[in-house]
Amino acid sequence: MNGNHETLKVDIMAYTPIGPLFTDLYELTMAAGYFARSMSAEATFSLFVRDCAERNFFVAAGLEDVLRELSVLAFSKDDLAYLESTGLFGADFLSHLEGIRFTGEVRAMPEGSIFFPEEPILEVTASIIEAQIIETFLLNTVGFQTLIASKAARCVHAAAGRPLIDFSLRRTQGRDGGMKVARSSYLAGFSATSNVLAGRRYDLPVSGTMAHSFVQTFPDEEDAYAAFAEAFPDNSVFLIDTYDTVEGARLAARVGNAMKQHGASLKGVRLDSGDMIALSRQVRRVLDHAGLPGVQIYASSGFDEFKISETLAGGAPIDAFGVGTKMGVSADAPYMDIVYKLVRFNGRDVRKLSPGKATLSGRKQVFRRSDHHGRYQADTIGLADEHLEGHLPLLQTVMTGGKISDARPSLDHIRDRFRRNFSMLGDDYKSLDEKKVYPVRVSRALQAIQESQ
Amino acid sequence: MNGNHETLKVDIMAYTPIGPLFTDLYELTMAAGYFARSMSAEATFSLFVRDCAERNFFVAAGLEDVLRELSVLAFSKDDLAYLESTGLFGADFLSHLEGIRFTGEVRAMPEGSIFFPEEPILEVTASIIEAQIIETFLLNTVGFQTLIASKAARCVHAAAGRPLIDFSLRRTQGRDGGMKVARSSYLAGFSATSNVLAGRRYDLPVSGTMAHSFVQTFPDEEDAYAAFAEAFPDNSVFLIDTYDTVEGARLAARVGNAMKQHGASLKGVRLDSGDMIALSRQVRRVLDHAGLPGVQIYASSGFDEFKISETLAGGAPIDAFGVGTKMGVSADAPYMDIVYKLVRFNGRDVRKLSPGKATLSGRKQVFRRSDHHGRYQADTIGLADEHLEGHLPLLQTVMTGGKISDARPSLDHIRDRFRRNFSMLGDDYKSLDEKKVYPVRVSRALQAIQESQ
Repeated sequence: MNGNHETLKVDIMAYTPIGPLFTDLYELTMAAGYFARSMSAEATFSLFVRDCAERNFFVAAGLEDVLRELSVLAFSKDDLAYLESTGLFGADFLSHLEGIRFTGEVRAMPEGSIFFPEEPILEVTASIIEAQIIETFLLNTVGFQTLIASKAARCVHAAAGRPLIDFSLRRTQGRDGGMKVARSSYLAGFSATSNVLAGRRYDLPVSGTMAHSFVQTFPDEEDAYAAFAEAFPDNSVFLIDTYDTVEGARLAARVGNAMKQHGASLKGVRLDSGDMIALSRQVRRVLDHAGLPGVQIYASSGFDEFKISETLAGGAPIDAFGVGTKMGVSADAPYMDIVYKLVRFNGRDVRKLSPGKATLSGRKQVFRRSDHHGRYQADTIGLADEHLEGHLPLLQTVMTGGKISDARPSLDHIRDRFRRNFSMLGDDYKSLDEKKVYPVRVSRALQAIQESQ
Repeated sequence: MNGNHETLKVDIMAYTPIGPLFTDLYELTMAAGYFARSMSAEATFSLFVRDCAERNFFVAAGLEDVLRELSVLAFSKDDLAYLESTGLFGADFLSHLEGIRFTGEVRAMPEGSIFFPEEPILEVTASIIEAQIIETFLLNTVGFQTLIASKAARCVHAAAGRPLIDFSLRRTQGRDGGMKVARSSYLAGFSATSNVLAGRRYDLPVSGTMAHSFVQTFPDEEDAYAAFAEAFPDNSVFLIDTYDTVEGARLAARVGNAMKQHGASLKGVRLDSGDMIALSRQVRRVLDHAGLPGVQIYASSGFDEFKISETLAGGAPIDAFGVGTKMGVSADAPYMDIVYKLVRFNGRDVRKLSPGKATLSGRKQVFRRSDHHGRYQADTIGLADEHLEGHLPLLQTVMTGGKISDARPSLDHIRDRFRRNFSMLGDDYKSLDEKKVYPVRVSRALQAIQESQ
């Protein structure tokens, strides 16, 4: 069932900052090291994903939280008292921290952008201490939301137009995880979420059916359906696998037909276990023979892009999927190798040579070349101030002097942008199991910088 | 470096409730269905893990948050206004929700308990609506914290006494994920966390070294070390792999020896890339030859229980590990099949027969039999009111009438309990890669209940 989310434009969109202690200790000890040497020169850091064997593309997400957090960054008295209590920091440094705000520049790909390994999706340019202490927060925020949006996009692609509902809340990795999964999956094309708080906070359509426990509290299954239909005459989806799925379908059909006589209408039934292809066909036949061709079949239980794809390829007449755990934790790839690397400091491009972990130095831009239909052809990572004829630069200035540059897009706007972007990505890259590397080059000017060091 | 966390007993231990909208919509629509039929009889739900192929045992965690949330559960005016705005719920039901508090009973294994598949780790007995609407919150909270504590325990076992530091914050699945990973890994024997906010909130030791960016901001590596040593004369761990690890070790040793002359002392060096066995041996030789046998070797970069075990088996002279991403998302098993099932309603034990998802009905207890050294021998799942001679019942009453029953244990107390419990679990079950099923039986009385239905 879908709630009507039009009525109330809620006021809890207000962002709750997590604060600057949400950081690895070393960000603060390094800051103390810089402070001790009076180092405050400008630094640029690049945030990018090194690779992820299981993904051909990524969907940028998390920028909204980044901008909101950075725009109010400040150490509270309590934060400073705690840091003092660790015995690690001197009074001068703590006093310096007290005055710290984020006053730098952020350039980033908008949420809903599609990007590839090694491409910077966000660059921060600020005084070294300001740029350093936000590292952990940036990686956590952009990394997780991008991880989920990228996974969800694969599910949406596999469903080939059928609606998907986020059912993951019970198994997400913590509370904030559950909230961000609802937002990130909606951004990538999910239709609704079961997460009521996310429905409220992000103004998302909320959806849900019933659990086995509901059926079990009634002496018999049919009575459970009838009770639910009374409470939700136009929004009932009956769960039919508590005892026997096909028998459940027959009982649901009987209640569905009874509902018609009261001017009500059964919306659907849900399968939650067993052989989804065989059962959905049997259930479809039961419903059709009962004169209920409009009653939809929802399916849940372990769905991800792989199971959706296999089930539909097997001809299952499923109308909508509840997609839970495996999307909500990105089970096949529960993390990405996302990093935030110093690329320029005090007017000098810097490099790092750790085995297997080299980084492109310099302040950068990502340029995308498309064909005349808008279809993505190839990207070039270049210098921030380069101009590549016929290419679209993807990083936009979203924060200047610590102030948010533009009106921020709504989530529905971001979702539309993702849908358009995704339609421009070649189908080869959307393969669920074949690795296909999108062409990403390095511009001559950027290459020259690497070699000159 | 470790902060001194003794000084300030912080006041932000205060729990922030997430509120009753942190739920799947169907919990509320089912509640509306019960309400419409005036159903308010007592229900018992069992929370348990069905199975997890990758784990031989689990470590219970999350109860503290459960008790705090349930003890203040209430729908706010804003919550109710939002629910009204969805158009799904009638005024009578919303008015009923307004008066809802959790007034039931919770029986649970204490945090730090070791348990096995199918064993209830928590049972709720309350009026059906109260017991139903907390499902999603309970699964999310207990499931995730248990997932991480179970993973962390494996890492602690693999490290064989060497300290482990939680470095996961940048890659945890969201903010709350990062906080709970710090707490859950400490509970399971980690020594410290890099997460400063978790250090503050949970009074944990905080620890950290330096990043590559710190080294890169200085014209040369040795100068970076010297600057850090000035700021942290007794707490410096130098990261030595920015350019060349062995050369980094030589420079670190030179600075370490210079520190001695100022009465300071280099604590350690950190390796973050490359062949950990070969490099740690080379670095140990460099440090020893420089007269610095007391300088410790820290290692990070992709460590989990498997890599720790292999690295130590290869003879790596590593003194402490930073354990990040793979522990922080439980990468090899990023979710468990944890469920919350109705087992008794209105005086009647209930069952569910969905394929592959049968549930033991009845209000239950888990009984553990140990040998005379206290070593765990076998468990029996029985009825809540059974008494099994010579067995220890693991579920304790922790909430009665919605009130927390006892003074809650401190995190250090829980950590000690886990350590004692873990020493009583046979080594076979601690194998990292071999499946070994701990014997869990069903009592005759509980079996009789299943068959009588």
